[in-house]
Amino acid sequence: MNHAELINIGVVGCGYWGPNLIRNFSSLPNCRVKWACDVRPERLERIEQLYPGVRTTVHIDQVLDDPEVEAVAIATPVFTHFELGAKVLSAGKHTLIEKPMASSAEQCQELIEMAKERGLALMVGHTFIYAPAVRKIKALIDSGEIGDVLYISSRRLNLGLFQTDINVAWDLAPHDISIILYLLDVDPVSVNCQGKAHVTPHIEDVTNISLNFANGGFALIHNSWLDPNKVRLTTVVGSNKMIVYDDTQPLEKIKVFDKRVEGPRRYDTFGDFHYSYHYGDTNSPFVIHEEPLKVLCRHFLDTIVNGSRPDSDGVNGLRVVQILEAASRSLASNGSLVSVTTRRADR
Amino acid sequence: MNHAELINIGVVGCGYWGPNLIRNFSSLPNCRVKWACDVRPERLERIEQLYPGVRTTVHIDQVLDDPEVEAVAIATPVFTHFELGAKVLSAGKHTLIEKPMASSAEQCQELIEMAKERGLALMVGHTFIYAPAVRKIKALIDSGEIGDVLYISSRRLNLGLFQTDINVAWDLAPHDISIILYLLDVDPVSVNCQGKAHVTPHIEDVTNISLNFANGGFALIHNSWLDPNKVRLTTVVGSNKMIVYDDTQPLEKIKVFDKRVEGPRRYDTFGDFHYSYHYGDTNSPFVIHEEPLKVLCRHFLDTIVNGSRPDSDGVNGLRVVQILEAASRSLASNGSLVSVTTRRADR
Amino acid sequence: MNHAELINIGVVGCGYWGPNLIRNFSSLPNCRVKWACDVRPERLERIEQLYPGVRTTVHIDQVLDDPEVEAVAIATPVFTHFELGAKVLSAGKHTLIEKPMASSAEQCQELIEMAKERGLALMVGHTFIYAPAVRKIKALIDSGEIGDVLYISSRRLNLGLFQTDINVAWDLAPHDISIILYLLDVDPVSVNCQGKAHVTPHIEDVTNISLNFANGGFALIHNSWLDPNKVRLTTVVGSNKMIVYDDTQPLEKIKVFDKRVEGPRRYDTFGDFHYSYHYGDTNSPFVIHEEPLKVLCRHFLDTIVNGSRPDSDGVNGLRVVQILEAASRSLASNGSLVSVTTRRADR
Amino acid sequence: MNHAELINIGVVGCGYWGPNLIRNFSSLPNCRVKWACDVRPERLERIEQLYPGVRTTVHIDQVLDDPEVEAVAIATPVFTHFELGAKVLSAGKHTLIEKPMASSAEQCQELIEMAKERGLALMVGHTFIYAPAVRKIKALIDSGEIGDVLYISSRRLNLGLFQTDINVAWDLAPHDISIILYLLDVDPVSVNCQGKAHVTPHIEDVTNISLNFANGGFALIHNSWLDPNKVRLTTVVGSNKMIVYDDTQPLEKIKVFDKRVEGPRRYDTFGDFHYSYHYGDTNSPFVIHEEPLKVLCRHFLDTIVNGSRPDSDGVNGLRVVQILEAASRSLASNGSLVSVTTRRADR
Repeated sequence: MNHAELINIGVVGCGYWGPNLIRNFSSLPNCRVKWACDVRPERLERIEQLYPGVRTTVHIDQVLDDPEVEAVAIATPVFTHFELGAKVLSAGKHTLIEKPMASSAEQCQELIEMAKERGLALMVGHTFIYAPAVRKIKALIDSGEIGDVLYISSRRLNLGLFQTDINVAWDLAPHDISIILYLLDVDPVSVNCQGKAHVTPHIEDVTNISLNFANGGFALIHNSWLDPNKVRLTTVVGSNKMIVYDDTQPLEKIKVFDKRVEGPRRYDTFGDFHYSYHYGDTNSPFVIHEEPLKVLCRHFLDTIVNGSRPDSDGVNGLRVVQILEAASRSLASNGSLVSVTTRRADR
Repeated sequence: MNHAELINIGVVGCGYWGPNLIRNFSSLPNCRVKWACDVRPERLERIEQLYPGVRTTVHIDQVLDDPEVEAVAIATPVFTHFELGAKVLSAGKHTLIEKPMASSAEQCQELIEMAKERGLALMVGHTFIYAPAVRKIKALIDSGEIGDVLYISSRRLNLGLFQTDINVAWDLAPHDISIILYLLDVDPVSVNCQGKAHVTPHIEDVTNISLNFANGGFALIHNSWLDPNKVRLTTVVGSNKMIVYDDTQPLEKIKVFDKRVEGPRRYDTFGDFHYSYHYGDTNSPFVIHEEPLKVLCRHFLDTIVNGSRPDSDGVNGLRVVQILEAASRSLASNGSLVSVTTRRADR
Repeated sequence: MNHAELINIGVVGCGYWGPNLIRNFSSLPNCRVKWACDVRPERLERIEQLYPGVRTTVHIDQVLDDPEVEAVAIATPVFTHFELGAKVLSAGKHTLIEKPMASSAEQCQELIEMAKERGLALMVGHTFIYAPAVRKIKALIDSGEIGDVLYISSRRLNLGLFQTDINVAWDLAPHDISIILYLLDVDPVSVNCQGKAHVTPHIEDVTNISLNFANGGFALIHNSWLDPNKVRLTTVVGSNKMIVYDDTQPLEKIKVFDKRVEGPRRYDTFGDFHYSYHYGDTNSPFVIHEEPLKVLCRHFLDTIVNGSRPDSDGVNGLRVVQILEAASRSLASNGSLVSVTTRRADR
Repeated sequence: MNHAELINIGVVGCGYWGPNLIRNFSSLPNCRVKWACDVRPERLERIEQLYPGVRTTVHIDQVLDDPEVEAVAIATPVFTHFELGAKVLSAGKHTLIEKPMASSAEQCQELIEMAKERGLALMVGHTFIYAPAVRKIKALIDSGEIGDVLYISSRRLNLGLFQTDINVAWDLAPHDISIILYLLDVDPVSVNCQGKAHVTPHIEDVTNISLNFANGGFALIHNSWLDPNKVRLTTVVGSNKMIVYDDTQPLEKIKVFDKRVEGPRRYDTFGDFHYSYHYGDTNSPFVIHEEPLKVLCRHFLDTIVNGSRPDSDGVNGLRVVQILEAASRSLASNGSLVSVTTRRADR
């Protein structure tokens, strides 16, 4: 196909997130949202009103049968990801699946195989690794300015948007996990998870995950659907500097603190010793203001045009699901430590 | 002793916290700080300069031998609490011990027995339960305005003040635990704790505790000595309203959010259901501005004068240590669930 | 015309603000943006890309000659408002003009007459009086809860969007003035204004206006295009309570402080007296989240359908311009006091 | 006198501010507060309780007659500053007077002469020029990093502490004015002031001052005793960077914004031109945490020991009073422009 031409996209699932995909793909010059699909006609009416140029259907086959459609974005409930993803790949279309990629690692593996066999792009919607702020933090870490990353603490809380098929860890932690994996570029070896279901029986609405990494790193992830404040806060503690990334701030999303503990300064008669603490400037680096989802959509189109591997490819999606599965096993065993084996892309 | 007269106090330990005790006791009309004691002469010089009226000594026996001294406050490292507390009680003086009360539940039990036998006041320095903000939250909960307390999340983070004999959970979590026990008035039955030591080997500087309560309640406590921001944030999620208590705010320490999830509103054709969310006013109740430690010191004097039981008595101190011991056992067993049996005061 | 049908709108001026009008009118069910007009073809290209259904032209006459077009919104530079407004009204179309309404009170008067003669709606784009937060403050004042309004202080600052035909007072103060007039419902009798031009000669980029009101009220308005922070802060000081409206906050835009000075409490031997201060709760009333410009657009359509007077009609626009003219005269006479005669609508 | 010995100080006036002077002088190693004086015995009782080592008296002569007393700090109402200052200087004691220095420029001149004739230190309590944050801003300006200072906007607001002998400009603006004079090191040539008295007749509780400087500089000062929030905010707008100094922040009191307007970028066919805006990092330089009043007290002692000129000497005090007098004249003439002639120290 000649990519001087527009890439025609179908968006499947027009609930909360699908319209954001339609809006962002529509704003990009080299693509056209040709189809919007949802089983609920009232959702399609809303799309028709906002985007008169987009065709709508309740039958995904109509989208998949259209030879002009090159790629499909899936923004449906998680339990449908595998079935729909497999259908889209079978139809020979490049695929973007919302996070988490599927309900199990096994399903993820299968989708990865299908995409590989057919030479199709398979990308997972880990939006935040496309956020300019996260890219900036990655650059700061890679430059060595932060020193060794000692641990990361990430919190994603708010009131609402309860899911009924997955718990809050499966809903919100994919963001935290994908950010942490992206920043650290190393895999966790074991996971603990505690949590509690208050509103829907057996669906935890508050969870806390701790991750132990291969290189000795440590991370804490706290998620809740039951918090009065919207919190999206990631703290990266380095041996030299510390970073706080507050995604709810309109400006100054990142603050770099020139703070650290310094080695024992003196030993006194009690065999006691004291640390000293370095306190320097706090810097908020300028970060360009661009919607992460727009960067993600552009990246998806680029991978189609260039045949390149997406930054959040199927293997990334799989690793996140493997960690979530381990967290679920830990939850089911009173929070005890559970090993996790993740698969790295064979690059 | 005739309590129309001044109560003479000795303060043992003049490091970080002792001077705060001296300052607050000095500001109260019905007491006098007669002695300050520390093994480090340079700490005593500082006290002499600031409080010319206070006598200083490196020998605790000089304090205990003074018949005018009725009460002693102990603000030394934790590992000395038991030995010094026992010494003070043996000398027949009322005792205020900084938190945590001692290094083990067994030690706490013994101090409780000693105080009981001698009819002496034994109080533990759980400062925050004397904070006007915490009292206000307790009143809001007890009034029923919040509804059922679903869970509490508490965070106490900062850079520095590393301890060398106890980890960050033993150092900071006593505040969170004592607040939570005070607010909920119910005991945890089991504990998980994960953490990691980055700076001093085997002394965790980042920990995360989760508590399961007898009545089904849940709490999360996150502590760190390695965070760029000073955080003292407790979130109380009720079934009707939610409270955020941010102790770092000079004003508006408490915010009460009229927010909640409301039951499923409708069932649609997919057997799917949706919650609705109530968003109302946010109210920051006026809270009198008084230093919690001053309230604590006044309360200690009152219990001496009235022979009443302190709000943070030895049994409270014991319960906190029992939970910390369980957290340490969980840490040592990869974060797995550990039962905790706390002892309630026989009221 | 039958208003069961769609109202066809033309938008003239597609610079910074025009696209916002197009976006909001497009989102309303009972209207259609039929035309977008700008003298700069590159601006029209952008509109065509975003709104394929909107026709574009560089000739306003094409818009005015279209009999389907019932109403025109003018979002061009201020110096063109009168000429274009007159043209639109002459063509028999309802008119929405961006703030400030025109370059002089005389021009405003003439437009008011033209609209009146032709029985056409004439509305001015004082966006903020349609903000849910401002409506809420008005309700709080009208309820008497605040007591007498003693004074209002309003600040609108940011870096950028320098205008080249008007100074910062004419650019930003129309928002502050229209909010103040709306809240107080009384007119200023005199004005002082000081300011300074730093970037463009003779175009003040920092100004400070003070207003004295007929009923003894007082207001201060500070505007700047040269401030590092975006500030949109209005403080309403009442004799009983005080309100702070911070429009840059995503939530809790309004805070109502139960604070006031209370009368002299005691007289001492020096003939000296002391006030006491009441400090109570701070409340942030829930305010629905809706874009003020959308409310404004809907209101414009309503006035067309119902033949009612807009809340920000020509007379409102005139009063704001009369105050700006007085401010300019004060600026030109070293900040001295200048009388202002405003015209109230003959309701 | 041999300054290896302690400098004995008397503090006259023990209302709101005097105790702060006593506390800070007491904490310095090379001085002793020997006397506290106030006409109200109940104020002295309070001092006796807190500082048992300080002698108290209701008769200033007892302080002045004590040959050991080398220096006296005056913290009484403004209308007494001249009489008491003259008395203290006549008694041959070094003098620290709270701001504003006196009720008129004439009185200030006379005190300056008296001190000069007697070779005594005369210092005015312009606390904030001793604040580490203000010193840091001065260093940033002097380094050229900010570029030319275009204007300064300073706000000092709160609820309460109404004075009964001076208006809010005389009470609070001395802080803003002394900061601005210190930073700019140039004098204003003219002043406008508007304001209003709401609580006490003829005592303005809200004022706004604008200052025009010899070098073309501009400043705005807003003061209020009737604001729900405590505000202490100074914005320094430079041609290259901008600084915001928020003294209410416990940390990050200063933020340096790498933001500026850049020259017209292009001219288009309409003779129209556009500015561009540079947005870079925001930096919060580390500033040591020390109470400004303590630095001031230490500086006062240093000037006594070294015979050096204080940074806030009588001439600084005089300049501030000259500006306040001009502001009062402007207030009395409806806010019109009033010239101000300040006197620089003959250095």
